[in-house]
Amino acid sequence: MEGKVVWKEGMAFEAHLGGHLFMLDASKDVGGTGLGPSPKGLVLIALAGCTAMDVVSILKKMREPVETFEVETDAVTATEHPKKILEIVVKYKFTSSEKLCKEKVLRAVELSEDTYCGVSATLKPQVKISNEIYINGEKLEAGES
Amino acid sequence: MEGKVVWKEGMAFEAHLGGHLFMLDASKDVGGTGLGPSPKGLVLIALAGCTAMDVVSILKKMREPVETFEVETDAVTATEHPKKILEIVVKYKFTSSEKLCKEKVLRAVELSEDTYCGVSATLKPQVKISNEIYINGEKLEAGES
Repeated sequence: MEGKVVWKEGMAFEAHLGGHLFMLDASKDVGGTGLGPSPKGLVLIALAGCTAMDVVSILKKMREPVETFEVETDAVTATEHPKKILEIVVKYKFTSSEKLCKEKVLRAVELSEDTYCGVSATLKPQVKISNEIYINGEKLEAGES
Repeated sequence: MEGKVVWKEGMAFEAHLGGHLFMLDASKDVGGTGLGPSPKGLVLIALAGCTAMDVVSILKKMREPVETFEVETDAVTATEHPKKILEIVVKYKFTSSEKLCKEKVLRAVELSEDTYCGVSATLKPQVKISNEIYINGEKLEAGES
């Protein structure tokens, strides 16, 4: 697996990944011009996207009638250099007008976090990752890994 | 710091990060349709972009006349689930028609890897990260951290 960034100007870089191209940039408060997302934030999107793809795929196999699905990631980072990521809370939010089985939803999240999600396994254990699960706005029991 | 992914269809998700929006998708060989980059690859771009921004910023302060600059990242991942990232080689490639000071270039890379790069510090030590530095195609001494 490989990726590349090419300097354009200031703190702006063109990212090349698997035939896709997008911009990266520092935000204005740290000397960039905000032409694209920041590198460290991409770690959060990587984790959210990786576990979200697992979960949507597992729940499809379980024939659960998920209608909308979002994964939010909130991180706590160190305040001194290097400003590494210390902790991430992953919030899984499902909605459906049909009944979703709570046990199957919990099982899908557990399978991703413990067995399938390569990004989660890359970051753990030095990044503390915990989860919250919501079905139609109702919070299920929280897990921690 | 926070990010969010929103399910669109199949394995495709819309990523929201710092006011920017882009697509994520699995590649066709693992059930996606390739509408965007893969989540795990974003970890490589996060590392490449984070250290690249440090280095370009440090060399600007050192008044080194860098003309083009790219950072490539190659990863070795586990072959069994969870397919985590085990090792990343970071290749820093500079060109200039003026003379670049090798010691300053090495120092800029070291400062990023040891002191400033939050993504590198997040991934180490469980991901083995090493570097290669090239100036106008000539390889300098390799470091490892």
